[in-house]
Amino acid sequence: MACGEFSLIARYFDRVRSSRLDVDTGIGDDCALLNIPDKQTLAISTDTLVSGIHFLPDIDPADLAYKALAVNLSDLAAMGADPAWLTLALTLPTVDEPWLQAFSDSLFDQLNYYDMQLIGGDTTRGPLSMTLGIHGFVPVGRALKRSGAKPGDWICVTGTPGDSAAGLAILQDRLKVKSADDARYLTQRHLRPTPRILHGQALRDLASSAIDLSDGLISDLGHILKASRCGARLDLNAMPYSDAMQRHVDPEQALRWALSGGEDYELCFTVPELNRGAMDVAVGHLGIPVTCIGQISAEVEGLHFQRDGKNITLDWKGYDHFDSL
Amino acid sequence: MACGEFSLIARYFDRVRSSRLDVDTGIGDDCALLNIPDKQTLAISTDTLVSGIHFLPDIDPADLAYKALAVNLSDLAAMGADPAWLTLALTLPTVDEPWLQAFSDSLFDQLNYYDMQLIGGDTTRGPLSMTLGIHGFVPVGRALKRSGAKPGDWICVTGTPGDSAAGLAILQDRLKVKSADDARYLTQRHLRPTPRILHGQALRDLASSAIDLSDGLISDLGHILKASRCGARLDLNAMPYSDAMQRHVDPEQALRWALSGGEDYELCFTVPELNRGAMDVAVGHLGIPVTCIGQISAEVEGLHFQRDGKNITLDWKGYDHFDSL
Repeated sequence: MACGEFSLIARYFDRVRSSRLDVDTGIGDDCALLNIPDKQTLAISTDTLVSGIHFLPDIDPADLAYKALAVNLSDLAAMGADPAWLTLALTLPTVDEPWLQAFSDSLFDQLNYYDMQLIGGDTTRGPLSMTLGIHGFVPVGRALKRSGAKPGDWICVTGTPGDSAAGLAILQDRLKVKSADDARYLTQRHLRPTPRILHGQALRDLASSAIDLSDGLISDLGHILKASRCGARLDLNAMPYSDAMQRHVDPEQALRWALSGGEDYELCFTVPELNRGAMDVAVGHLGIPVTCIGQISAEVEGLHFQRDGKNITLDWKGYDHFDSL
Repeated sequence: MACGEFSLIARYFDRVRSSRLDVDTGIGDDCALLNIPDKQTLAISTDTLVSGIHFLPDIDPADLAYKALAVNLSDLAAMGADPAWLTLALTLPTVDEPWLQAFSDSLFDQLNYYDMQLIGGDTTRGPLSMTLGIHGFVPVGRALKRSGAKPGDWICVTGTPGDSAAGLAILQDRLKVKSADDARYLTQRHLRPTPRILHGQALRDLASSAIDLSDGLISDLGHILKASRCGARLDLNAMPYSDAMQRHVDPEQALRWALSGGEDYELCFTVPELNRGAMDVAVGHLGIPVTCIGQISAEVEGLHFQRDGKNITLDWKGYDHFDSL
């Protein structure tokens, strides 16, 4: 662990401790010691964010802490897991106390909101970057894997993908939005995406597969298709758009962002026809639209698009966002 | 996870999979899914290594992978834990395939040796650094915490602390050692320290506290004293030195390196008088000397030194190694 001036940093992260009963020993020994509840599987995900690659060097530290955690929580959501513990390895070029105060305040706001505990990590000097390790639980056998999609299953998304890319375009002056409310909505979707934890949990026994939208629908749904060894047809007429997107972005650009914009952190999942009614009920009270946009198929390979009932080819695909890693 | 050229990197780390029965899902989904054996506590530790801070930029990638894992394993050893899983977040400026081949070969050699599995991580572009998250098990209630030392307990160390600092001095041309064998022994103690996993396990029911020597004996034993709220006396005449150290380093410098050199990754632990005989038997067959160098005391605060039966004051302490973070 840290010593010298970098022990200062540790103070910012050791000041708030939740009282999770599953944490035997948190920060302050060689390892954290943790107890897993009975009949629960441990879910672990790791993400690194590097300045200039995953975020702009002058990002508000509160936004950075929010997004770093949200991105990791989104991975738990995509497995249907309950958040539990975080490790944070933070590398900083200098000890900037106002920056650390804002960053750690925002981080602990989120940790407390999700009843999570910071159980350890590392603080080192170096180019600004961080690696978060997130740990959660999912009841044994009920995780939402990528490999469970079957022909006939419906393909659904939460929320309105593409908003994050539009928000980034506003931040980078590539998109002008005159309505301050709409501009704020879209930029917040980029800066403060909502991990769909509750949707993931509600879908545990209903969805056949799930993934979160980090790289864009085409790329991420592609991972489900590859893992499940099947193809899919998407109905582009069914794609859901936010009001702000519809008001300020032409339909072709909106579609492009929805399909390949990335960083939405919505869930894309598949649901068998038999479970579709139950799914509608389970997610209906969560306040976020869930839209079926296509169907898994045994007859096609890869991803196919339909518009107005006809097959079409898109002459673009893949990545169109800030960072493609 | 990675896309584009950085998906190349993932290939180097997805090529070898152990068949640990506790891994339900490893690399390739939103999260890894893991099952914890009955009556075991999970031990987690995180370490970041940054180029130019924790290692020289031109370090042999095989040595780097070895040391990155050994440093983390040493934290498990200090808790008496059995190694199980690793997450690796690797940030690289470019895709250098020979470097990746050597790094990953060395990493998997070690993972296989310890029957560990790489369960996930992240590969990103940026300044060379890495964060490892290591996960192990320890039977419930039997972890070796820092806080258990009691007055009267003996203070012991494995191996011969100081060798790593001497090895670094050789690598940096600050120490000349004419014997090639001795030079090789000392530099290997720096480049390839041995995590004392077996010692940690053998000490589970015998030691009252333990820590690994990353920052040097004075600093690390200080953590035990602080957590256990007691003081200690060290008998400097009892300090163990390697033959190579005794042959090539003057006694005062050897003592300084032994007490504050750092990066030895030996264990320092305390053992009650009642368990000392059992401890000698338990660690006796492990091939590494274990030496009692002092005693926990209720009569003093902090760390006190004795030589030839007299109290002495050292006019230096703290850190004297490559990196003090």
